[in-house]
Amino acid sequence: MLINCVAYQDGRRLADIPVDQIHLFVNEPDCFVWVALADPQPAELEVMQKEFGLHELAVEDARHGHQRPKIEEYDESLFVVLQMIEPSEGDLSVGEVAIFVGKNYVLSVRSRAKRGFTDVRERCEREPELLRHGPGYVLYALMDAVVDRYFPILDAVETELENVEERIFANQTTRVNVEDLYDLKRNLMILKHAAEPLLDATARLFGGRVPQLCAGLHDYFRDVYDHLLRLNQSIDSERDMITTAISVNLSLITIQENEVIKRFAAYGALVAVPTMIVGVYGMNFDHMPELRWEYGYFAVMAVIALIDVYLFYRFRKAKWL
Amino acid sequence: MLINCVAYQDGRRLADIPVDQIHLFVNEPDCFVWVALADPQPAELEVMQKEFGLHELAVEDARHGHQRPKIEEYDESLFVVLQMIEPSEGDLSVGEVAIFVGKNYVLSVRSRAKRGFTDVRERCEREPELLRHGPGYVLYALMDAVVDRYFPILDAVETELENVEERIFANQTTRVNVEDLYDLKRNLMILKHAAEPLLDATARLFGGRVPQLCAGLHDYFRDVYDHLLRLNQSIDSERDMITTAISVNLSLITIQENEVIKRFAAYGALVAVPTMIVGVYGMNFDHMPELRWEYGYFAVMAVIALIDVYLFYRFRKAKWL
Amino acid sequence: MLINCVAYQDGRRLADIPVDQIHLFVNEPDCFVWVALADPQPAELEVMQKEFGLHELAVEDARHGHQRPKIEEYDESLFVVLQMIEPSEGDLSVGEVAIFVGKNYVLSVRSRAKRGFTDVRERCEREPELLRHGPGYVLYALMDAVVDRYFPILDAVETELENVEERIFANQTTRVNVEDLYDLKRNLMILKHAAEPLLDATARLFGGRVPQLCAGLHDYFRDVYDHLLRLNQSIDSERDMITTAISVNLSLITIQENEVIKRFAAYGALVAVPTMIVGVYGMNFDHMPELRWEYGYFAVMAVIALIDVYLFYRFRKAKWL
Amino acid sequence: MLINCVAYQDGRRLADIPVDQIHLFVNEPDCFVWVALADPQPAELEVMQKEFGLHELAVEDARHGHQRPKIEEYDESLFVVLQMIEPSEGDLSVGEVAIFVGKNYVLSVRSRAKRGFTDVRERCEREPELLRHGPGYVLYALMDAVVDRYFPILDAVETELENVEERIFANQTTRVNVEDLYDLKRNLMILKHAAEPLLDATARLFGGRVPQLCAGLHDYFRDVYDHLLRLNQSIDSERDMITTAISVNLSLITIQENEVIKRFAAYGALVAVPTMIVGVYGMNFDHMPELRWEYGYFAVMAVIALIDVYLFYRFRKAKWL
Amino acid sequence: MLINCVAYQDGRRLADIPVDQIHLFVNEPDCFVWVALADPQPAELEVMQKEFGLHELAVEDARHGHQRPKIEEYDESLFVVLQMIEPSEGDLSVGEVAIFVGKNYVLSVRSRAKRGFTDVRERCEREPELLRHGPGYVLYALMDAVVDRYFPILDAVETELENVEERIFANQTTRVNVEDLYDLKRNLMILKHAAEPLLDATARLFGGRVPQLCAGLHDYFRDVYDHLLRLNQSIDSERDMITTAISVNLSLITIQENEVIKRFAAYGALVAVPTMIVGVYGMNFDHMPELRWEYGYFAVMAVIALIDVYLFYRFRKAKWL
Repeated sequence: MLINCVAYQDGRRLADIPVDQIHLFVNEPDCFVWVALADPQPAELEVMQKEFGLHELAVEDARHGHQRPKIEEYDESLFVVLQMIEPSEGDLSVGEVAIFVGKNYVLSVRSRAKRGFTDVRERCEREPELLRHGPGYVLYALMDAVVDRYFPILDAVETELENVEERIFANQTTRVNVEDLYDLKRNLMILKHAAEPLLDATARLFGGRVPQLCAGLHDYFRDVYDHLLRLNQSIDSERDMITTAISVNLSLITIQENEVIKRFAAYGALVAVPTMIVGVYGMNFDHMPELRWEYGYFAVMAVIALIDVYLFYRFRKAKWL
Repeated sequence: MLINCVAYQDGRRLADIPVDQIHLFVNEPDCFVWVALADPQPAELEVMQKEFGLHELAVEDARHGHQRPKIEEYDESLFVVLQMIEPSEGDLSVGEVAIFVGKNYVLSVRSRAKRGFTDVRERCEREPELLRHGPGYVLYALMDAVVDRYFPILDAVETELENVEERIFANQTTRVNVEDLYDLKRNLMILKHAAEPLLDATARLFGGRVPQLCAGLHDYFRDVYDHLLRLNQSIDSERDMITTAISVNLSLITIQENEVIKRFAAYGALVAVPTMIVGVYGMNFDHMPELRWEYGYFAVMAVIALIDVYLFYRFRKAKWL
Repeated sequence: MLINCVAYQDGRRLADIPVDQIHLFVNEPDCFVWVALADPQPAELEVMQKEFGLHELAVEDARHGHQRPKIEEYDESLFVVLQMIEPSEGDLSVGEVAIFVGKNYVLSVRSRAKRGFTDVRERCEREPELLRHGPGYVLYALMDAVVDRYFPILDAVETELENVEERIFANQTTRVNVEDLYDLKRNLMILKHAAEPLLDATARLFGGRVPQLCAGLHDYFRDVYDHLLRLNQSIDSERDMITTAISVNLSLITIQENEVIKRFAAYGALVAVPTMIVGVYGMNFDHMPELRWEYGYFAVMAVIALIDVYLFYRFRKAKWL
Repeated sequence: MLINCVAYQDGRRLADIPVDQIHLFVNEPDCFVWVALADPQPAELEVMQKEFGLHELAVEDARHGHQRPKIEEYDESLFVVLQMIEPSEGDLSVGEVAIFVGKNYVLSVRSRAKRGFTDVRERCEREPELLRHGPGYVLYALMDAVVDRYFPILDAVETELENVEERIFANQTTRVNVEDLYDLKRNLMILKHAAEPLLDATARLFGGRVPQLCAGLHDYFRDVYDHLLRLNQSIDSERDMITTAISVNLSLITIQENEVIKRFAAYGALVAVPTMIVGVYGMNFDHMPELRWEYGYFAVMAVIALIDVYLFYRFRKAKWL
Repeated sequence: MLINCVAYQDGRRLADIPVDQIHLFVNEPDCFVWVALADPQPAELEVMQKEFGLHELAVEDARHGHQRPKIEEYDESLFVVLQMIEPSEGDLSVGEVAIFVGKNYVLSVRSRAKRGFTDVRERCEREPELLRHGPGYVLYALMDAVVDRYFPILDAVETELENVEERIFANQTTRVNVEDLYDLKRNLMILKHAAEPLLDATARLFGGRVPQLCAGLHDYFRDVYDHLLRLNQSIDSERDMITTAISVNLSLITIQENEVIKRFAAYGALVAVPTMIVGVYGMNFDHMPELRWEYGYFAVMAVIALIDVYLFYRFRKAKWL
């Protein structure tokens, strides 16, 4: 589905243009075309391939989807794949945007992702002095937007981890905590899959030998790189904390088991000892003096009560109860 | 066993040729011979060694099998070993394909693997404009096919892991889950053994100094590399999840143990307290007023019932029952 | 909030100057201005940006805060972000200082941190022969101060870990130990986030190609680097020990459980065996010779006592009691 | 103890020579001397040092033994230390072979190892066209032999691990399994100590700048390297599996504990409930109508039997029994 | 405290000299001064700084102590910090030696360590042909001595680990084992802190660009490096084994718990079943035929005995007893 097809000159929007006139604008000087597709039909991609002269293998990747994030050079053009992660029904859904960048064009192909890039386009159009940098700047703006959208996902993971921690230490060691920790780990892995491969790739867009398209945008791509670095570091430390939380949780469950067993044992004693004593006086010996004593029954009950009070006190002191 | 022996010119199939005429075609310009062997006899390999002038050490490796995946240069030729992983009776069987590539020939020697490469050959023959690249392209096609066949194996592991996860969190913490997780780990190790060494090796076929045979195929081998990278990353994260699943499973088992002990303790109390009370009235004291009371028996039974109802209510509230 | 705005010449304090005269001093030879802001208003930052000609992206970072520690070059100037970690109510609060360093100026912008750098400024002013090195030396002095302040934080973690260890091995395996270990791990992660990214960054300020501003200060920045290296190494080994402490603690809890179960079993036996025996003599058979014997009751009680003494002795020997 | 002292010319055995004539042959063109010592006396080593002009530090290392595997260059000669691992009484014993290689000599000094290298010498003598490469080829042959002998050790570990796995999953979670896993880990560490340092060292014998002695033997040393790489990879993955096996085993033990507790609880219930009921009818109330009923006793026994049958059925269904 | 202050010429001891004449000898050709201080006063260090012209930052480090091990170049001189680890009362105490090496002098400053370096000095003086190498050789001799002293510490750890292993597998899973394993880990960390940073540092003293002072001593510093490499590798594998030992120990504790529970359950059954049966005959039904039978009592006791014998046999067979 075609979302937008706009020509820009000197950083300013010229006009919405029909797809079949793209090649006219692509060859104008200081002019570039920025096309946005979403979940395109094969035919739509084919048209684009012809209009922009895209490389077969790159188009193939965009068509199949499910690529890992990467930045590849094909001659003078760049092919970028980014993963878009969106929360959906308590889970994370992973979409993709493939970006083809050439001297005079940018083509973004979004797949399996709800949220588009109209906000990015609007912001770009509000800053023509920056947009004048051309397709390289658009690439930066798109990458920046995608990477910025990872942070709320990470924040959600961190918040949820804090919730689980609180529940764990509030001694609510239920099955749910364990399942949540596992889910958090899964989500971090998804985030990691999106962010980690991008780190090395982005590093090649600034410093050292840089693709022609990104020249002069050094500080901008370094900024993206910096965000990715922070993201990756946070992902790693959250993963570490989750692993720790799982083992800490196991310790707490075992401590709880310990406490249950102790309480069980203590109450068991409070019942078993009287049972034994009354058993004694249930014996049928002909000659048991206590049985004949008028206050025997009351004395035995009093002794039992005393013993239980004493045991209770001892268990309480030993923190078994 | 000889599977195929075909000569190609300018990317087109010339003819099936007998083995002993190979040397005639190898020296033709723009012509190359593509031979496929499966589980060959030593004699067959010897013939090939003579026809193609293969290096002794490489032939030795192909003969012995059980090599690790690798790509080695011998002068102007390449010797490639790939592992072929096939599911067999619920387990994975590991076969091997050794590929000798020279200026005018490709020889693939498949061992202990059921599935061959006729589909690869057919696809190549359908695209003569690509096959014209010569033996280097055939090498790419074979590597691409082998690597692509790793993905369903990985998918099976991922699906099975999801099944185990579901069973774990559905509280079916049986022995089988643990065994399955262990088996999954084993299978991932097998996959890792096949894919990881290939990563570095493939990287040397594009970018930097590239063997003459692979020149001009940069984008293709980068594609294989990219697949391997994705595969390795997935393997690593699945391994990580399996380790997490094992420890999460242990937590859940311990939680279950906890619950069993609590329930055991609660029901125990429901039985032990009445036992103690009836014991009291089983005592044989001469002077026990309650025993003489007409409704004593019923009163005691009622008290016992009340106590148990109360305990039951308390245990239920504390979630022990 | 403006803390200080002072001009220096030849390593000596010239005068406190008003903010709007900064540009006059910045262009004097051998003269530099050192400004300190704390939690500034956007307007204050804007003034500084104009006076010093700061780069937009760097100012943006200083404004937003929550950056990872980094050292970035913008043309001839440096932009440094350091995290300031301060204990607050038993927890750690993370602030930030952004430092802009140019040929003739130093601007430090402190955010969300209580403790400032007046002590650093005073020490610098006491050593004019060092301060003569100019803004690069001030950068060193600030970095050195920030890094030195990490050490008491780490020491506190180490001391607390020792406390927890002591409690663990004194068999006080309470819930609190586990929670403390988890908190310590969290704190180490915070420290790691502050110190680790700085390591690589600092390495680029000495040895190899060095920013012009830091030339001649090789030994000083190496000193900071050395401190960071020590810090990072200690953080890593403390993390390792915490992980070990968690698993050691789990072992001790399980050992304790074991002991509780043994003691429970032993005392259970001391009660259950007599209960069984007295049950025997509670049977109502017409023909039970012992029941008629005058000393039957006493004999049975003696036997029971003997059995319990023997069992007690056995359990004691087996260390169950 | 001197094992062999043989002079070779053009790859062919000239003669066994006495030790004190070594220097005569060493200076002949195309001639080299290959000496094998086993557990030598200091005096024997001294003679060799003089005859071959060995470096003091290298001889020192050979004398002391217990070196880590390494390959060191001393001017034009090489000093190689390899560990020899041999099974001895169910355990692994670690010996050593120090190899001095110069332009015209090879000296191997074997210590604390039973198996020598006569088979290597014989194979070399059967292939004079290869032995003509000189001392470098002998070094290859010795290294190849030592490394090849690591594989059966690794195979034994793998086989034993499979045995333990089988026992674990056959629910024989005895103490022995744990001890075996620990021993396997120990053995892998021994193997790792022998193989890992060799990897880097061997890499320096082919590719890049190569010692003069190994020139022209590129493919051979790469072969040794390849074996070491495979070995190391297998060691790492076996270590990983052992760690997994230990934690899987713990899970299974805990599951078993769970089952034992459940069965214990179930059988306990089958006994405790009747005990409670018969206790009721052991009470001595004057007025208990059931006691007077002629079939009271049989009715109670029947009720008890019914309850137990019902409980048994319930426990069986819940898989507690 | 001044330990020694000796001047050497051509590798031979000239004379003990007073501290204030050091500068006379330092400027003699082929002459160097070797001073040893232990726990010096600030004043002593100041004198040395003046006599040798030491760098302020290095002297600062020596004064403060508690540095990480390092080797730093200051112009033409080297500043080396090594940690000295000594056993003290069952624990490890960490001292330090700071070594300043210049063209004509060596100054060693030992802090918080009991054992000095007189043995090193004596050995050096016995080998004048080596000592002739000058201060670089003295540096080697000191480093070699310090590193060699690490090995007995490591050996002690290994021996203690073997003791703990033995106790663990002899089923003595006491609290002490766990505590010992934790202490061993601590000690390994201390050793690692001393040895690991030294590895990289030492590597810069041979091979590649080497400080002038160490030229010609390549083989000697490589020897130190080699020892450090072995040490580090052993530390890592011991750490790994300790981690394994901790988890193996937990498994064994859990197995023991399992056994205790089984035994508890079995003996419980042996008591509970008779208790239930005798309860039956304690019932007061008017009509219980067995009670009237003359041999009823004996029959019941026999039945109980038979049941217990049978149960005992079953439990024994199932290895619960």
